[in-house]
Amino acid sequence: MKRDAAGMERHGLVLRLKPGARAEYERLHAAVWPGVLATIERSGIRNYSIFVKTLDDERDWLFAYFEYTGSDFAADMARMAQDETTRRWWAVCEPLQEPIAARANGEWWARMQEVFHHDGPS
Amino acid sequence: MKRDAAGMERHGLVLRLKPGARAEYERLHAAVWPGVLATIERSGIRNYSIFVKTLDDERDWLFAYFEYTGSDFAADMARMAQDETTRRWWAVCEPLQEPIAARANGEWWARMQEVFHHDGPS
Repeated sequence: MKRDAAGMERHGLVLRLKPGARAEYERLHAAVWPGVLATIERSGIRNYSIFVKTLDDERDWLFAYFEYTGSDFAADMARMAQDETTRRWWAVCEPLQEPIAARANGEWWARMQEVFHHDGPS
Repeated sequence: MKRDAAGMERHGLVLRLKPGARAEYERLHAAVWPGVLATIERSGIRNYSIFVKTLDDERDWLFAYFEYTGSDFAADMARMAQDETTRRWWAVCEPLQEPIAARANGEWWARMQEVFHHDGPS
């Protein structure tokens, strides 16, 4: 996570799906509940993408990228975790997921370290 | 990879580092050669980030995200592969990397499937 001159933080995160969960995960994420998206927006998150790939362990891995434009990520995430619709969404998604052992305390999606960034011409 | 209304494609890619290669990879990517960055820009790539995380297999995994604003990605990548500086850069980086078996024909970094995207307010 690094913050650019305009105050935007980039986040990269990783999580694993349980065996056999990919189709259901894709189905859910093709139509994320509007209330979940509204809370994401209210939390200062934009340009949010999730990618999936089967790696050599034959497990499906999720990688997420988003940009955070707020000023207190921990506070915004704590507020997000209070949202009732978001909590119901997580209760649907989390049984499909198996977080990595090497995540930090309190993490579900494990934060990755940014090692390179280049914006290019705007 | 999906293209948005403005014609921008999002790309998510995954690659693994060889054991012990992370420090050198980070060192190189803290100061990518200007000629490499110039070729990236000429190729229509912007907002390019690379993240690293040690997963439960104790290997260091790389996750890349970038946005492509051109009109022919295959042609732009073929032209990038002709750039002498880029080729020298790849010759330095590739010995640090071990691509996954499940990559597509011709890939080094393996393309992932986008399963979710939300932009939020602009």
